[in-house]
Amino acid sequence: MVNIAILGYGTVGSGVVEVLNTNKRSIEKKAGKEINVKYVLDKKDFPDDPIQNLIVHDYETIINDDSVDVIVEVMGGIEPAYTFVKKALLKGKSVTTSNKELVAKHGAELLQIAKDNNISFLFEASVGGGIPIIRPLNESLTADEIYEITGILNGTTNFVLSKMSSEGSDFDDVLKEAQDKGYAERNPEADIEGHDACRKIAILSSLAFGMQVDYEDIYTEGITKIKDKDMAYAKYLGYDIKLLASSKKIDNNIYARVAPMMLGSEHPLANVHGVFNAILIKGNVIGDVMFYGKGAGKLPTASAVVADVVDLVKHMGKNLMYFWSTEKMRLMEIEKVPAQYFIRIKGSSSNLDANVQKLFGAIQVIQLETLNDEFAIITEEETEGNLNKKVEQLKKLTDDETILSIIRLEN
Amino acid sequence: MVNIAILGYGTVGSGVVEVLNTNKRSIEKKAGKEINVKYVLDKKDFPDDPIQNLIVHDYETIINDDSVDVIVEVMGGIEPAYTFVKKALLKGKSVTTSNKELVAKHGAELLQIAKDNNISFLFEASVGGGIPIIRPLNESLTADEIYEITGILNGTTNFVLSKMSSEGSDFDDVLKEAQDKGYAERNPEADIEGHDACRKIAILSSLAFGMQVDYEDIYTEGITKIKDKDMAYAKYLGYDIKLLASSKKIDNNIYARVAPMMLGSEHPLANVHGVFNAILIKGNVIGDVMFYGKGAGKLPTASAVVADVVDLVKHMGKNLMYFWSTEKMRLMEIEKVPAQYFIRIKGSSSNLDANVQKLFGAIQVIQLETLNDEFAIITEEETEGNLNKKVEQLKKLTDDETILSIIRLEN
Repeated sequence: MVNIAILGYGTVGSGVVEVLNTNKRSIEKKAGKEINVKYVLDKKDFPDDPIQNLIVHDYETIINDDSVDVIVEVMGGIEPAYTFVKKALLKGKSVTTSNKELVAKHGAELLQIAKDNNISFLFEASVGGGIPIIRPLNESLTADEIYEITGILNGTTNFVLSKMSSEGSDFDDVLKEAQDKGYAERNPEADIEGHDACRKIAILSSLAFGMQVDYEDIYTEGITKIKDKDMAYAKYLGYDIKLLASSKKIDNNIYARVAPMMLGSEHPLANVHGVFNAILIKGNVIGDVMFYGKGAGKLPTASAVVADVVDLVKHMGKNLMYFWSTEKMRLMEIEKVPAQYFIRIKGSSSNLDANVQKLFGAIQVIQLETLNDEFAIITEEETEGNLNKKVEQLKKLTDDETILSIIRLEN
Repeated sequence: MVNIAILGYGTVGSGVVEVLNTNKRSIEKKAGKEINVKYVLDKKDFPDDPIQNLIVHDYETIINDDSVDVIVEVMGGIEPAYTFVKKALLKGKSVTTSNKELVAKHGAELLQIAKDNNISFLFEASVGGGIPIIRPLNESLTADEIYEITGILNGTTNFVLSKMSSEGSDFDDVLKEAQDKGYAERNPEADIEGHDACRKIAILSSLAFGMQVDYEDIYTEGITKIKDKDMAYAKYLGYDIKLLASSKKIDNNIYARVAPMMLGSEHPLANVHGVFNAILIKGNVIGDVMFYGKGAGKLPTASAVVADVVDLVKHMGKNLMYFWSTEKMRLMEIEKVPAQYFIRIKGSSSNLDANVQKLFGAIQVIQLETLNDEFAIITEEETEGNLNKKVEQLKKLTDDETILSIIRLEN
């Protein structure tokens, strides 16, 4: 029998208990041992829940109990999660966490402590909810040199963009609906500004490239500026707009970026709708592989946490060799990153003046019948730095309100 | 250093050597040891290939060399692969194979031998080429009870169906083109009759449900009867036709089936085109997860084989706990399996006679402008047995040529 303690009895924590109960027999068969929840740490009490007799309010009870071998950290946030997890690892207890902030910020250090103590620190649920991605990246794609990771890593924003696309609705209306339905938080900033996706791509990039990718260094743009008019052009072109989190190796440099992108309909991520997430990985021998599933939610996330618990129980007293160095990765400046761009411009394409054509060269021009006072162009690939210069020049030649929107584009 | 021997220097075998050379540094870092190809077994010689000095023609050289710890079997076919692999495992050498026939037929026995000898038998490349699926199924989805696996598991047939769909071409023409391009074999039967997909779903089902699923027991229907007219209806309806290999738990029974299916555009597998494969897995807590990538090809397949080698080297002298029982799973009879059906019928829907309506009840009727002498219906869900009875009755009431085609349908 292995005793485990769960830190935090919120959505994920209660999901973990539910999954362990629901699939008790098959889980223990795969783990090879009985799994016993000995403690649940929470500030609150849950008098009507059978879990109440396991509730403790003081972490010391757990950390000082040598019969507890596995800690499940599902509190979220940096503190006190970081202190609790570090203590546990130093005491020789293996840990699994669903906490993306913690892993993005302190992953390298915690993995090293786990290695030094011959135990493991796992975090499958921290990215992509239920989607198996951390373990495949570490254990399945080992023959490849990975040169790109691109994902739809946030279900809330994908739900909002999918609704805007299918219904032609406005961002604010859809966000309100998502909040009413509980798909979006009352304070939705972490999702809609891209911060959540940014932490997740930081974790995947650190793992794939073996060095610490600080999320503060990742260029991050949310979806708040996406208009129903942008979506109308996208539909007309057969494109879709998705919030993509990517990191990519160009020569020996790596860039990372979170931004809304126009995606061609043949792009594997273009068909990922609603609250689903997906991660596309490109390797130098395997080519493209994609992992798809529910990126959030109580049970899918708990499924990933419990799969980690099974792994920890199966490999007790052994370090599962996940690793990235604490050495900081210097990312390419966003100005040097190339892309194609969709640009909405005030005015009419029929008198598309020489300025636009001279500045942007060979471009595709789109004029929607329903929008007479504006048009759009799609540029050739060029660096963000170059694009910004051209945009500044165009503004000087016309006025500051000439450019209505700019969205990166990928086929 | 770990010595390995490769059995078979065909497409996959030479791919394995190429991958080991191309990514030598990163692979050995992940494996933790140098990997040395000591022997390559093949009947032929390769005088112009640097591999020639490793070529042996007699398996005894390999099996009797105690310095060889890992065997890579990429010959294909049951014999002599089965004899070679069994001998290796009994001698305490771990094995990885890309051989779906071998795994489908003898997987349970070989896994047991590996377990008894505290070594491992891995076969990631036997299903889905480069797509990580065997390892995720065993090591990531451990918190779930899996109740459905449905995959596009054959790239040749998916290429043919995708072309028929996008170009409106006839089956025979597209097959010929695929053969000319090398996407289909000169003798394409194993692919187009569904036998290849059948072996693969047998392996996935055996693993997921823990008992031996004999491929001979799986209802298997190929794509040779799919007409351009079927595809025309599918397009009109916004559906796509795909060859799906599935197994599914209904109550406590399991059915397995390989058959062309009409898929609604929102189905996750509907957007998997060309030579790509994908596997959709449904679990009772995780919900839907999907794995997507190149299902065949030299380098993707070799990538999966080498990932197994890395795993074997990392866990030398340890059994990686993959398992299914030799006990045979009794599958549901296909007559008891429920589905919706698309049926093309000779005649005109405007005088859709009482027979059709009385027999099939609430149905959707489709009449294409371009096809005047026929129409199609979509039935409610019912068992194959019931459907067959109705079809027989309809034939009796009209004539034997009334039914032009029947394709199962899923939204």
